[in-house]
Amino acid sequence: MISVIGYHTTKFGELWNKSLYDLVGEVIRGVLKDAKLEKEHCDAIFIGNMLGGVLENNLHSGAKVAEILDTHIPVFHVESACASGGIAFNMAVNYITAGKAHTVIVVGAEKMTDFPPDVTISGLSAAASGDEQEVGLTFPGLYAMLARVYMETYGYTEEDLAYVSVKNHYHGFLNEYAHFRKQITIEDVLKSPYVASPLKVLDSSPISDGASALIISSNHQLVAQAKYVAKILSSEVATDSISLKSRKRLDELLATKIAADKAFDQAKIDRKDISVAELHDCFSIAELLAMEDLGFWKKGTAGKRIKEYETMHGNGNGFIVNTSGGLKAAGHPVGATGVKQIGEVYLQLTGRAGKRQVKKSRYGLAHNVGGSGGTAVVTILGN
Amino acid sequence: MISVIGYHTTKFGELWNKSLYDLVGEVIRGVLKDAKLEKEHCDAIFIGNMLGGVLENNLHSGAKVAEILDTHIPVFHVESACASGGIAFNMAVNYITAGKAHTVIVVGAEKMTDFPPDVTISGLSAAASGDEQEVGLTFPGLYAMLARVYMETYGYTEEDLAYVSVKNHYHGFLNEYAHFRKQITIEDVLKSPYVASPLKVLDSSPISDGASALIISSNHQLVAQAKYVAKILSSEVATDSISLKSRKRLDELLATKIAADKAFDQAKIDRKDISVAELHDCFSIAELLAMEDLGFWKKGTAGKRIKEYETMHGNGNGFIVNTSGGLKAAGHPVGATGVKQIGEVYLQLTGRAGKRQVKKSRYGLAHNVGGSGGTAVVTILGN
Repeated sequence: MISVIGYHTTKFGELWNKSLYDLVGEVIRGVLKDAKLEKEHCDAIFIGNMLGGVLENNLHSGAKVAEILDTHIPVFHVESACASGGIAFNMAVNYITAGKAHTVIVVGAEKMTDFPPDVTISGLSAAASGDEQEVGLTFPGLYAMLARVYMETYGYTEEDLAYVSVKNHYHGFLNEYAHFRKQITIEDVLKSPYVASPLKVLDSSPISDGASALIISSNHQLVAQAKYVAKILSSEVATDSISLKSRKRLDELLATKIAADKAFDQAKIDRKDISVAELHDCFSIAELLAMEDLGFWKKGTAGKRIKEYETMHGNGNGFIVNTSGGLKAAGHPVGATGVKQIGEVYLQLTGRAGKRQVKKSRYGLAHNVGGSGGTAVVTILGN
Repeated sequence: MISVIGYHTTKFGELWNKSLYDLVGEVIRGVLKDAKLEKEHCDAIFIGNMLGGVLENNLHSGAKVAEILDTHIPVFHVESACASGGIAFNMAVNYITAGKAHTVIVVGAEKMTDFPPDVTISGLSAAASGDEQEVGLTFPGLYAMLARVYMETYGYTEEDLAYVSVKNHYHGFLNEYAHFRKQITIEDVLKSPYVASPLKVLDSSPISDGASALIISSNHQLVAQAKYVAKILSSEVATDSISLKSRKRLDELLATKIAADKAFDQAKIDRKDISVAELHDCFSIAELLAMEDLGFWKKGTAGKRIKEYETMHGNGNGFIVNTSGGLKAAGHPVGATGVKQIGEVYLQLTGRAGKRQVKKSRYGLAHNVGGSGGTAVVTILGN
């Protein structure tokens, strides 16, 4: 059994006075402190980062992290677009399972706000297919098409999508590490300008800087000594065709469904056992699709059920979604997001989520997506 | 036990009529054919690529490969500069060891010649430290400093380095997939223009396009059916500070030493058991350092021993180095190199290396380096 025994995150937002490796160094030091460990306890490091190469000609982070830590242990850089953090976690779990390490640091980091927005957005489009890039389809455009299909297939309106953002901004208001800590209303969302119709600014996650780190371990002694422990019950990955045009259905992300089925099988628990989940709400539509594709809500019902706010903190139905604020309000430094999601679930399961703590959380799930659904990672923790 | 059961590579060189994913698709189809398998036999894919993001805004290769293959299996993109291919192989081995897959395709691919050389070289400098980038230190400059230290410490000349290139060009002459198939002389090397003194054009590996793929498997039935099998005895990784200024010694690459010691321990064989090795000769000096750091030759002696051509094909001393032509003559499409190295060792161990076949090869080693030694991967195969 492998457990999470430590977590640290920077605040997400516009962190103009810190470089990518300032953030990486900060969270590695922070997570070692949180777990009360020294670097010598750790056998390897996995780092998820998407845009270092594209935006600042900054690659080979393995050796750069080795220099920060003055170490010779293996350090692996992985990239799967916005799922880079979740994939780094998945690979770290497998690395321990393979017997190559007992204790591993997982880092997710991204620096996005130092560049003009069009440069960052162009960089993000590296995750899309060549055809989609050529016709100028950015991620808002791709998710707008998914939203349009969903709304037309199941008869929903832009207002139905807006509830996701209102809920997640409330959670961001409760989270001191969130990029946006401002509550918003349905009217605010509907009044905000279109990014790609039907998606508006307040349907969309922001461009953020930030880094997050976890320590995971199979070392019985370290786990026994650790004050805050959550067990990793499963971490599973699936892929799908990068292009929307190559997919059979556009009212779902098939990679999410496949990864979720594998993850629940592996964890040997039911959907109803989950009390907290961090879902990949890069746009409001994405949380609705995820709620259905993960099997929490029946296909086509999310646009209705979201309006009951049953997954909002304080509503007491026993299943709260995106307590961190999600990508929408906590922010979306792409490489960091997947690690932060698992970190938030870990905080919830260990009773350390402060104002956004969900009572009696026994099982939690994190769902991280790359691109418009080309990669999905589903991770389940328990305590 | 995990075995290599198939290999395919494109020719390395200036492949202007093929895109990055043309090359990836070609080697995946080719390796499936070589192993006589269908894609349905494979549970996951690992792809090593360094510059897709930097040079052509092309990331998220997991989902792009999924689209080529019309599959939903996990596809992982890893990046460790020029060690990206070796790291992809290492992670694939660990993934199987972890029980997450039985059979995995490992792809290394790079497209470098579609861009002006200064653009590609600037992209390559993404693997160096920020300080080194800022002062304009490209990789020829970094390795030139290592060469200078080595030559001055042990009393060698530029001519002593040149023997590496002459030997490896002879091997490239024998390899129909090599970028350069032209034999050269010591005089040719010495007459070639300086890139960064004391290193000259003919001390340096070229900028190349290319892709290579392996299939590795723990499936007893598939391995038993396979015509050509080499066992993976070990694959080990170490890191070092990215900056030369942070290292204690500059007459060695410490990451290579650490990875090699771990790999020989794991494989339970001696240095003298190795009959073929593919070493990371990005510059002539790098092969000399590697021969010493891997423990084949005593520190400080490589500049002398290389002149006896004892590691050149046909010289019959039972240990031949860089039969593919090495990075120098076979070419260096950075993400592909680490996969091609292991593929060459596999061809040698299975008697399929054609004109460059080394007799009675029982054990072989591949050594892949990232940057100026920030990452090293050492892999040992046996049959």
